[in-house]
Amino acid sequence: MSKEITSRETDYSQWYNDLVIKAGLADYSAVRGCMVIKPYGFALWENMRDQLDKRFKETGHQNAYFPLFIPKSFLSKEAAHVEGFAKECAVVTHYRLKNDPEGNGIIVDPEAKLEEELIIRPTSETIIWNTYKTWIQSYRDLPLLINQWANVVRWEMRTRLFLRTTEFLWQEGHTAHATAQEAIDETLQMLNIYAEFAEEWMALPVVKGVKSVNERFAGAVDTYCIEALMQDGKALQSGTSHFLGQNFAKAFDVKFSDKDNKLDYVWATSWGVSTRLIGALIMAHSDDDGLVLPPKLAPIQVVIIPIYKGEDQKKEIDAKVETIMEDFKALGISVKYDNDDSRRPGWKFAEYEMKGVPVRMALGARDLEKNVVELARRDNKTKESVSLDGIADTVVKLLADIQKNIYEKARTYRDDHITEANTWEEFLQLLDEKAGFISAHWDGTAETEEKIKELTKATIRCIPLNNKKEEGKDIATGKPSQERKGFCLQRLIDLFTE
Amino acid sequence: MSKEITSRETDYSQWYNDLVIKAGLADYSAVRGCMVIKPYGFALWENMRDQLDKRFKETGHQNAYFPLFIPKSFLSKEAAHVEGFAKECAVVTHYRLKNDPEGNGIIVDPEAKLEEELIIRPTSETIIWNTYKTWIQSYRDLPLLINQWANVVRWEMRTRLFLRTTEFLWQEGHTAHATAQEAIDETLQMLNIYAEFAEEWMALPVVKGVKSVNERFAGAVDTYCIEALMQDGKALQSGTSHFLGQNFAKAFDVKFSDKDNKLDYVWATSWGVSTRLIGALIMAHSDDDGLVLPPKLAPIQVVIIPIYKGEDQKKEIDAKVETIMEDFKALGISVKYDNDDSRRPGWKFAEYEMKGVPVRMALGARDLEKNVVELARRDNKTKESVSLDGIADTVVKLLADIQKNIYEKARTYRDDHITEANTWEEFLQLLDEKAGFISAHWDGTAETEEKIKELTKATIRCIPLNNKKEEGKDIATGKPSQERKGFCLQRLIDLFTE
Repeated sequence: MSKEITSRETDYSQWYNDLVIKAGLADYSAVRGCMVIKPYGFALWENMRDQLDKRFKETGHQNAYFPLFIPKSFLSKEAAHVEGFAKECAVVTHYRLKNDPEGNGIIVDPEAKLEEELIIRPTSETIIWNTYKTWIQSYRDLPLLINQWANVVRWEMRTRLFLRTTEFLWQEGHTAHATAQEAIDETLQMLNIYAEFAEEWMALPVVKGVKSVNERFAGAVDTYCIEALMQDGKALQSGTSHFLGQNFAKAFDVKFSDKDNKLDYVWATSWGVSTRLIGALIMAHSDDDGLVLPPKLAPIQVVIIPIYKGEDQKKEIDAKVETIMEDFKALGISVKYDNDDSRRPGWKFAEYEMKGVPVRMALGARDLEKNVVELARRDNKTKESVSLDGIADTVVKLLADIQKNIYEKARTYRDDHITEANTWEEFLQLLDEKAGFISAHWDGTAETEEKIKELTKATIRCIPLNNKKEEGKDIATGKPSQERKGFCLQRLIDLFTE
Repeated sequence: MSKEITSRETDYSQWYNDLVIKAGLADYSAVRGCMVIKPYGFALWENMRDQLDKRFKETGHQNAYFPLFIPKSFLSKEAAHVEGFAKECAVVTHYRLKNDPEGNGIIVDPEAKLEEELIIRPTSETIIWNTYKTWIQSYRDLPLLINQWANVVRWEMRTRLFLRTTEFLWQEGHTAHATAQEAIDETLQMLNIYAEFAEEWMALPVVKGVKSVNERFAGAVDTYCIEALMQDGKALQSGTSHFLGQNFAKAFDVKFSDKDNKLDYVWATSWGVSTRLIGALIMAHSDDDGLVLPPKLAPIQVVIIPIYKGEDQKKEIDAKVETIMEDFKALGISVKYDNDDSRRPGWKFAEYEMKGVPVRMALGARDLEKNVVELARRDNKTKESVSLDGIADTVVKLLADIQKNIYEKARTYRDDHITEANTWEEFLQLLDEKAGFISAHWDGTAETEEKIKELTKATIRCIPLNNKKEEGKDIATGKPSQERKGFCLQRLIDLFTE
């Protein structure tokens, strides 16, 4: 089975594609750039969604649902926003098909042309702020803390399963506040929720930072992000949280009266993570034999495979497994018993290895006699024979240990791949030989940022929130950089970064 | 507050609209025919979705996600299907906007025209069966039991919040089977799940039946449905389950090899319920003072309102409520404490009445002294003073009683409104004077069905599965009707039925 996917060393990008397909996470579709999320991939997304949703609700947010369609004119209302999103959107121009009078099947009915074209939402700031205008009058209506789980469409030329698809699933929070400070606090709160979720549930250490002006969300005052490091030493933007200032409130004329009856524009944030997180999860932990999933998010945490000859042995094992499964379920362990007669154990071992099931239990007739079972870990491929007494508790501990181990491994890799560069030569050498995040001085200008990108394909992923404050000189221009030490620059490989 | 909405007697249709808006369930949007589902309405949908999803998973279904877009040519592959859906769909023709060279804002870029237009899914049979072609080869791949929660678009000329909107949210199950019988069993299983959910959770008694040929889903062999009766005596189709035969398998060439290696087309079902269920829930139970929600689905089951003078009394009540809330939450009761200082108790009473919160607890300083509290039921407007000892248990019982009462009331109304008509005169009289379901003989022909609809605006809602088998004569034509006694005919009011 391991032969079925390309190794990371041979072709990292092909390894990723093979893995997504062979593990049954997603499939290409008949529509260019759109994917089908298969049941196993969707179960993973449901687990991620449920956890995030819980955190959103705990922090006072409510879910709602806004229209898929955005009138074309709405996009133009915020100047920077339209620049960022008009270039890559799906446009609905008609609302009916009809039979071709010349007999060539069905055609678009030219008489059913919309007066104003509708855009499929690439993000919902405009339609939502147009709605907030009617919901917000007074300080009593604030803060307004709303989130939406939805599909969005961005017409991408080059796509990649989960990482960049024309249609994708995401959540988008859109909040309204009475003061700038409150909105900034919200922006950072959500950034921290994303970072904690990535670290605690996805076992994915991230760098929290703020984007450079060039990389800001179209319409934001500040864009915060979490950046994760993949096994090939490249960064993946994994979530963003925007402080929007009063930009959208002004564009859609959303004012509130404060306690003294004074009118002012409302302050806003928006923040989102998408099915791209599944791509991050795959790339961060998996190996040449298939997926490696952190137990806290794995759709199946334990698979039990019977090893038997003949019906009598099978029945005996079936009966024992039934009681084991009850114990597991009582402790909240997600378990699958695969006693399908038409597949051999070896085939099953490879299948669940490919699918990244954290723990495999192989139970044979001889094991039963000895009251033991073989436990195999997916993360480090070790096996051990353990007693069936208290097996549920053993497995709970094992799952926690696997979660911790996967995280530690990723964190060590990440920490080993944040390197300081103090000269242009050092910078070039690091890009060529080591990759990972490079921490360097930058003079803070867009010109220099673009020049560096042009010369090296490296981009400023973010200015980390915990960066070192020290005097220094820009690696490219030599101009002074007062307090802005600690940038992450990353070679831009178009499909793996944005 | 009760004056704020139109009474049912004055204008049933306006009463419904007022209610949806004033209870904060949904709002009109800037896009024709699309609504905004507000947090309170969405919380209701989440409760419904979670319950249905649980039942789907318990019966072996898995969730997945398929593209929003359907290539135009796919629609044409199933002859009946295209007839049914091509007329009312949103068509994407372009994938980019640009700045108007003449300076009139942004326009559709004529160079970004799609080679083949894309339809926003009105339902997903075509894109899904095109995918199943690659997933299904052998009997081992069957049954394939997949569900999708998604948004769909049907371009409606006349729309109505929740009941009929251009975009709506729904779930659509799409299953593939090796035999016709297995597919029929699945169709009926899902119909029963819908009926049980409607009755046990929505407190909404339904009639299970099969549609006449004219009313079948475009592409189905048989369409089963649940029909609910609203308070104005009109029917509302609340869910459908289709046996699709081999129609889509043939259209998309999906074959499987059986155990003897013989090739055959796959058998299919599809089934769905939508946000229209929220419309059914509202119309079935609510009154002129606002929503009445069944406790099992209510986002807030109990609201606690403090009655106090001065800070000292407030603090005392706050402290007591804190311990009450803990007890409630331990028993899984969803509770809200509204101690907002800026609103009077009377305003709050009306507000939560409008929102249909099943139980209101008013707690005053004098109540505290006596160790009692006032419980008010939303369903029958009765109030009683009960002891604070064991209040959580008291409320659990009360909620169960309210759920039962709401259901019984709706069932009595439904049972009282199924009337037999044996002659044309009786039929006309019932339509004029009583409405509800009318059980009558029909000769089974599409001609007669259309004639009756033309003359009376009544349509055959369904042929009930439990109908009486007896000889009779068609009420319109007098032709014999052997075993087809027990049709439901219903005056067609375009927006309230389909």
